[in-house]
This record gives sequence, C-alpha cells and structure tokens, in this order.
Amino acid sequence: MPRLPRPCLMLVTDRRLCHGISLPEAARLAVEAGVSAVQFRERDLPAGEQLELAAQVKRSIGSRALFIVNDRVDVALALGADGVQLPESGLPVAEARRLLGPDALIGRSVHSLQGAIAAERAGADYLIFGPVYATRTHPGAPPAGRQALREVAQAVSIPVLAIGGVAAEQVREVLQAGAAGAAVVSAILGTFDPKAAAAALVAKLT
Amino acid sequence: MPRLPRPCLMLVTDRRLCHGISLPEAARLAVEAGVSAVQFRERDLPAGEQLELAAQVKRSIGSRALFIVNDRVDVALALGADGVQLPESGLPVAEARRLLGPDALIGRSVHSLQGAIAAERAGADYLIFGPVYATRTHPGAPPAGRQALREVAQAVSIPVLAIGGVAAEQVREVLQAGAAGAAVVSAILGTFDPKAAAAALVAKLT
Repeated sequence: MPRLPRPCLMLVTDRRLCHGISLPEAARLAVEAGVSAVQFRERDLPAGEQLELAAQVKRSIGSRALFIVNDRVDVALALGADGVQLPESGLPVAEARRLLGPDALIGRSVHSLQGAIAAERAGADYLIFGPVYATRTHPGAPPAGRQALREVAQAVSIPVLAIGGVAAEQVREVLQAGAAGAAVVSAILGTFDPKAAAAALVAKLT
Repeated sequence: MPRLPRPCLMLVTDRRLCHGISLPEAARLAVEAGVSAVQFRERDLPAGEQLELAAQVKRSIGSRALFIVNDRVDVALALGADGVQLPESGLPVAEARRLLGPDALIGRSVHSLQGAIAAERAGADYLIFGPVYATRTHPGAPPAGRQALREVAQAVSIPVLAIGGVAAEQVREVLQAGAAGAAVVSAILGTFDPKAAAAALVAKLT
C-alpha cells in the first residue's frame, strides 16, 4: 500500500501556470528535484482530456513519485493511480475506498478542524488543510493561519499537508506547526524554473 | 443486461427547472407517466452532492425506469446505476466499459455524423444526437436539424435518441427521421405538470 512519505512535498497541477513548458515536463522536473507526490488537478478540463493529460503526467513522472488524481475516482481507476484527492465537497471517503480498494491512498481536502476530524473518522489516509496563507490560486479564500494548521495537526493522527501560499520561506513554519509537509501549485509551476523551485522547497523540507 | 427500450423517452435532469417540486419527485411523476429512462445530469454540483441527489432520484424512480448517470462513471459505480451517458468530451467508451462491466448501458452524446460513427465503433450501446431543434437549455448551439438526425440514424445500427428542443409536436418527426426516441429536459421539467407533460410525450411516442 502506498504511504505518503514524511516529510512530503506534493505538487498540485495547474497547467495554465506553466511557463513555456508542458505540464508533464514540469511535473517530471519537479519530481527529479525531489517532489514526492503529484496531484493531478485540472478541473476545468472535460473528463476525456483530463484522462489524456493525466496519463501523460503519470508516464512522465514514472514510479519516482506518487500519482494522485483530484476528485475523479473514475479517472484514478482508469489510470491505476496511487490514489485520489477528494475535495471537501467531493465523493465520500467510504465510496472512494469501495471503488479504489484498500491499497489506494485517499486524501481529503479540508478547511476546518471539524472537517479534518470528520475526514479522519471517515477513513482518509491523509489530509490537505488550507489555505494556510493568502494564495493567488484562491484569491477569495481567507487564510486559516498557522495556529489553525497546528490545531488540525494535533487533532488527527493522519498526516496533514499544508496548502495555500506555501513557498520555501514558509516550509519550516508549517512543519513546526505539525504538518507532514506541503502541497504547492504556483510555488513550483508559477516559476520559470520548476526544477530549481522544487529543489528549494525540498531543501527546506529535509 | 439492460437495453434501451424502443421507442424510448429519456428524461434528462436539471433540478433548476423544477417548479415547486423536488427533482426526485418530478422524476417519479415522469416515470409514472411512462418515461423509460432517467439520465441524472447536474454537472454544476460537486461530486458529493451529485451522489446524494442522484441516490434520491434513483430511489424515487425505483426499477420502473433505467437510471443513467451523466459523465461521472464513479458516481454511476457508487450507485449501481444501469449505465452512464458520456459527453462527447467525456471518458472514452472503452474506459467506461472496463470500469462498469459488460452489463452496463453506455451512451455517448454526439453532435456530428463522424462523432456518431466513431462512438458506435468504440462500443457505445446507444447515442444521443443533438441539438436537433433550437433549445433553451443550450441557447448558443445551432440546431443540427432533422436531416442530420436522419443521416446519423441511417449511419449507425445502435439506437439514436434525439435531443434539443424536442416537445410533443416534434416526437413523430424525430421517429420518422429514424430516431429510437427522444431525450428531453425542459419539455418535462420546465412545465408546471411534469406528469402531464411526460404523458403527452409518451402518447406521441407510441
């Protein structure tokens, strides 16, 4: 059964941020720099295109990192992904478990302490909590802050990844708050050198 | 293996059209009036809410009509639906078949003759073709017309349902053009009496 490595740096995809580089290539570079999991999240694409692009990303990163699909359990199943990242309003953990089997890694995105506790109880393998800091990816979402992250990490026994505005400077803070690592989008993909950006994050993580 | 009845009247859901009645209740009334399949299509809802509402609709119609889920093979699997309706840009038919098994009814929505031929070749059990007429549901889409419907129905051997602006007055026309029936949204849900509206459509169909 795949387990989230600790500490974990997860790259969450957004192909629209890539600068003069394809998403599969950017993901490959990030993995070469030490990213341990790639979460494919291209929710504006229809399912057929998601499947196609996700297959390319999966092939590109090979077995060097975990490959997780956001929201679509069917796409995860079709690709034989390592797991699925369920949005807070996504399918219940129990349904995803039933469909994907006991060996799949099932993460739940949560935005509150209650949500985190409920997700652990429902059988999630890990959580992504945020936004911890202000983030360009979700400009309307008020940051939850480090204290909220600390409370979540203390309340559950499964790993919690911090998301939302986490750049290299914030990595130590989120680890100190009890996070098992971070999930980032623009801190890697929004740069002109995804490999160097990923390496800088990894260096702070370990 | 569930087969699409011939002729077939399929209700495609849009909860936002329901007048003072819940979607599960409207679907139940339509099925009582003779609708033979209900396709759950509430694409703006997150997957968790889709699953919940779709479960209510499925329970409400019981075994009196086929229950089909639009796009999300995972939701169809979770509910044990009779099948899935794949949008033209949705998952490939072969993937849906692999995930749902040989007994599932797999429909593909198509908008051209080439799309129809490709979908039959890919293993779809039936097609929905349209919009045949101008429709409020997709106001930007130019109607394909009866002649295009006729060409599609002649080119494939699987059943073709006409969609798009089909009201009771158009049912005979689409059957004469070779359609196996019709898929409707507002002609049932956009009325104040879904049962009477469905009955009027069924009467024209048989």
